Amino acid sequence: MSAQPVDSVCIIGTGLIGGSLALALKQAGFCREVIGAGRTETTLIQAVELGVIDRYDTQISRAAEQADIVVVCVPLGAMHAVFEQINAGEIEHTVITDAGSAKQSVIRDAGDVFGEGFPNFVAGHPIAGTERSGVTAAFAELYQQRRVILTPTEDTSTDALELVRSMWQSAGAEVDTMSAEHHDLILAGTSHLPHLLAFGLVDCLNNLEDVDEIFRFAAGGFRDFTRIASSDPVMWRDICLSNRDDVMAMMKRYRVEMEKMYRALEANDGEKLKEIFERAKKARDAFADRITPK
Amino acid sequence: MSAQPVDSVCIIGTGLIGGSLALALKQAGFCREVIGAGRTETTLIQAVELGVIDRYDTQISRAAEQADIVVVCVPLGAMHAVFEQINAGEIEHTVITDAGSAKQSVIRDAGDVFGEGFPNFVAGHPIAGTERSGVTAAFAELYQQRRVILTPTEDTSTDALELVRSMWQSAGAEVDTMSAEHHDLILAGTSHLPHLLAFGLVDCLNNLEDVDEIFRFAAGGFRDFTRIASSDPVMWRDICLSNRDDVMAMMKRYRVEMEKMYRALEANDGEKLKEIFERAKKARDAFADRITPK
Repeated sequence: MSAQPVDSVCIIGTGLIGGSLALALKQAGFCREVIGAGRTETTLIQAVELGVIDRYDTQISRAAEQADIVVVCVPLGAMHAVFEQINAGEIEHTVITDAGSAKQSVIRDAGDVFGEGFPNFVAGHPIAGTERSGVTAAFAELYQQRRVILTPTEDTSTDALELVRSMWQSAGAEVDTMSAEHHDLILAGTSHLPHLLAFGLVDCLNNLEDVDEIFRFAAGGFRDFTRIASSDPVMWRDICLSNRDDVMAMMKRYRVEMEKMYRALEANDGEKLKEIFERAKKARDAFADRITPK
Repeated sequence: MSAQPVDSVCIIGTGLIGGSLALALKQAGFCREVIGAGRTETTLIQAVELGVIDRYDTQISRAAEQADIVVVCVPLGAMHAVFEQINAGEIEHTVITDAGSAKQSVIRDAGDVFGEGFPNFVAGHPIAGTERSGVTAAFAELYQQRRVILTPTEDTSTDALELVRSMWQSAGAEVDTMSAEHHDLILAGTSHLPHLLAFGLVDCLNNLEDVDEIFRFAAGGFRDFTRIASSDPVMWRDICLSNRDDVMAMMKRYRVEMEKMYRALEANDGEKLKEIFERAKKARDAFADRITPK
């Protein structure tokens, strides 16, 4: 047995998420080589030049069948098409995983393409990222002390699950498993809704007159609050549509919360406002230390 | 004429805002001494021990009449009462200013106490702060390269305005002037609404089952987005009530924006969502560099 149990990892989509995983795996010596694959050859050439991947193949089926693990790091809307291209290759012994931010939709796509009962697909989601994107934003430390959630189904083989777990662990992440349903609900609240709120706030202010002046007088709180509004629009469109039911349910809950605050303001009810703010501060303070560290 | 044109500054409320101003003025040599005043003697003793103020007086009227400038750094809901205590002293030659986050309400309070046409009141708002509060959080650099907005009325004397301007400049800030109406509208959008949204999000998630797990899987975006939900509940209750009309108007605009996104999701309208996200990202990216630096 070689020192490296895994010979080759194929990463499809070498942006921030895929590129950072490639760098981390190379740094950890998890595999002999990382093969990049994707639509845009210039990106793949750049990824080789930056030392993010060892080599590339623009034909996804060929790249995938050379690898022990294929990690699909493309926007959720492109998952199904990429799975089809992977499926065109000889992938009997290949473990396939992904890094999408919604999991039920990816599992549906995988079931649709690879067939129900396919044991070698492991749905996954690294809870990491920055508002930047692209291969130039990739860095090996992105997953250090971050959480990765894997959402195996009853068809997922234990070997495949453990292989993907060990891959993320070697990239520095803590790996948890849960159901895809539970994952999607949690992420709707902690990630998808906040992104909608931030995009919405900036768009809302952007429609005001004197928008230049408005942003000029914005302070640190605003900068932090709206940082996620600089995220990739295509990626976030896909996330919202893929996790549509949970996101809509969360938006409804949030609307009720906002109505509560609006009515308190309307009634000049300072006690009610203070009560909400105090409860929120208490929860935020209590959990601040437990939130994934910087 | 002495090297220090200002002999004595009285700061009422020596928390993060007042304490940091005291430290900055002492560091800049703007005045010979900083007198602290406030309700709670233990806080004032602590402020002296920390070197934030030179001495203190628990009787606000007496502290104020000894000073060339009085800076009121208390929650908006306490402004009126503090103005009344200041007004009990001999304050003919004293310039009075404040650091409240809403300006029309403070000007109303000042007019009510000091009388219409009072020339020595200059309403002001340093756009700075952190989610922390209290004298132990104070630091001399808080106002470096931050903006301070002064909102003089037609009654405000030029001398008083220029004295307050020079005070903030010596603390390191850039000073702008505008109408109180305009200030309140801008801040409702860039500060007051975002705080409500953050408090609301944390409270909304806090009401879910498995709240522990929800926060456990929150990432950096969530941490930044909700940082302002750790702000002081009393201060923010007062801000929301004091700037109630503008805050409610902004909440209504925001509700329209959220409805637009909800309807797009409901209709599976990815184009519409992408359009909103792209517009927001473009605005956020364009203004990111112009937002007050860290």
